[in-house]
Amino acid sequence: MRHAIIMAGGAGQRLWPLSRTKRPKQLLELISGKSLLALAVERIKGLFEPENILIVTNAEYADAVAAAVPDLPAENIIGEPIGRDTANAVGLGACVIARRDPEATMAVFTADHIIRPVESFCESVRRACEAVEAQPDALATFGIRPTWPHTGLGYVHYGEKLGDSVYKVLSFKEKPDHFTARRYVESGQYFWNSGMFVWKVRTILDALKAYLPDSAEKLTRVAASDDLGGALADTYPTLEKISIDFAVMEKATNVIVVELGCEWLDVGNWPALATVSEMDADGNTIVAERTCLLDGERNVIVSEDDHLIALLGMDECIVVHSRDATLVCNSNESHRLKELVGLLRAKYGEQYL
Amino acid sequence: MRHAIIMAGGAGQRLWPLSRTKRPKQLLELISGKSLLALAVERIKGLFEPENILIVTNAEYADAVAAAVPDLPAENIIGEPIGRDTANAVGLGACVIARRDPEATMAVFTADHIIRPVESFCESVRRACEAVEAQPDALATFGIRPTWPHTGLGYVHYGEKLGDSVYKVLSFKEKPDHFTARRYVESGQYFWNSGMFVWKVRTILDALKAYLPDSAEKLTRVAASDDLGGALADTYPTLEKISIDFAVMEKATNVIVVELGCEWLDVGNWPALATVSEMDADGNTIVAERTCLLDGERNVIVSEDDHLIALLGMDECIVVHSRDATLVCNSNESHRLKELVGLLRAKYGEQYL
Repeated sequence: MRHAIIMAGGAGQRLWPLSRTKRPKQLLELISGKSLLALAVERIKGLFEPENILIVTNAEYADAVAAAVPDLPAENIIGEPIGRDTANAVGLGACVIARRDPEATMAVFTADHIIRPVESFCESVRRACEAVEAQPDALATFGIRPTWPHTGLGYVHYGEKLGDSVYKVLSFKEKPDHFTARRYVESGQYFWNSGMFVWKVRTILDALKAYLPDSAEKLTRVAASDDLGGALADTYPTLEKISIDFAVMEKATNVIVVELGCEWLDVGNWPALATVSEMDADGNTIVAERTCLLDGERNVIVSEDDHLIALLGMDECIVVHSRDATLVCNSNESHRLKELVGLLRAKYGEQYL
Repeated sequence: MRHAIIMAGGAGQRLWPLSRTKRPKQLLELISGKSLLALAVERIKGLFEPENILIVTNAEYADAVAAAVPDLPAENIIGEPIGRDTANAVGLGACVIARRDPEATMAVFTADHIIRPVESFCESVRRACEAVEAQPDALATFGIRPTWPHTGLGYVHYGEKLGDSVYKVLSFKEKPDHFTARRYVESGQYFWNSGMFVWKVRTILDALKAYLPDSAEKLTRVAASDDLGGALADTYPTLEKISIDFAVMEKATNVIVVELGCEWLDVGNWPALATVSEMDADGNTIVAERTCLLDGERNVIVSEDDHLIALLGMDECIVVHSRDATLVCNSNESHRLKELVGLLRAKYGEQYL
């Protein structure tokens, strides 16, 4: 059978003040009234039975996640007591799936992006599943053909074509500097690393046993426990914090990449929301019930309730209203939101975080 | 005895979203936690007994006004059922005072400005009272020596010096164009017209009888009525809407001007608030309980409650948060706030006005 896990962990200060410690960005209903997590589940429903979709998230969010995806069985929402990066989230998911179905094909998805059209995405996932089912010792990653020299993503250097949209991976590259990123893009031999994967569950567990034996052994025991929550709480703090790319993918030999034949749009910060949303004639992105604009262009306006936001003569400004806090941010400075949140912590403690 | 009226009428859309139809700007507690009206009353308490201070305001605001100045007797708050401009507000006040004390000296103040230091202001008022008591047929206005060619104010052309800071008025000038305003300022022969006056109540009533006989007659009857509210409601709609400057001051012959020897600062719009408030080292004016700024200069931030306002990389921006609406405005466009409010009315009716 085919199983999937969706990793929905990160806190996401970059969408403050809507994203908070207890309300991660994947749960914000920003995209036509839907959350990224709900969209991620919806996207793969044609490929995986609901009972075969696991969500690995922060234990703090588990209730909110369960409420956001009511179609999934409650036991499929797994809460990590603390974050131990993707190697352990993947390992935990793999151990849970292996107990249910040792022969499973396992896909790993993130909930950070808008992916469209869904049909093309599903076609790529199907192709990856077929590839690892035909070649069970392979680890498949999804790659996106880069459209610009992004320095915030890892890259996948690919080689020989193995099939339709399937290539052998030569190496993984960490986030490059701008010069290197340009070289990657111009060469035509690199994909962006999506952080999404497909493999046989047996294969990834073997890889973890080889490359991250402590986690593999502990997570196997955790998944076998009658008290999953208790076992997680005891074990997780002792695990090494490491990404699946660094722990496994960069070391493994039989890695293939499947090209994602669709748009893959980050909504990790406020300006990015504009790139995935409808705009008015003046280039304003409005995700708010009640607004009034006079002479303003290329603004992003977001409100979680019916509070009125009125803008006069503002351009390239981000205004985000939440119940207890409002952000007004110069679009060109939005990459410094984390710095602002740090200042907030210094001034008001955890209250607004 | 000396009596005073404070005119606190106008709706003041220019401080939206804090000022509303039912909450005029004079009641906003923006100046060190005090309202302009409270400051106006406080300012003259050394000169007038509380029972001799009348406030003429919109009937809609009467309760809020009474609550804002609890030291005044309730019957001293007079609510106009509709606005009929300053000639009628002054006339109404004069008629009420004349019934209490036909020999009264009457001062007329506005509540639109910050005036400081209070001592100098009181000295000017005292001087004006003495001038009209020595010369009971005179009408005295207060003038401010202009510091720049303001085109939003009327000017007073003055002549012969009659005493310390007291001059004969040659003529009143309507709001000038920029060129004319410059000429006025450079000549040294003009004051800004403050819209504040002192006269014997008998003298202003005689002037109204001469120049605005219909109002004079009707308001005398209203003030004599046992049911002031009912009489006002019946009579006010029939009065001609006209300013005291236009109706009386421009026509009267024995007009003098007393120079106000103090600062006289308009707080009629948001940028003006910055000129009367403390600023931080970056020139930001903050009238809000909870704020967090990263790299921003010359902003004005106002909140009526403890909602947090966070600014990142914003300069010369006005952010005003009220319970149900937030304004984000380019400082250089703030003169167009009335236009924005018009747009709001078209979109949401009276809800936010």
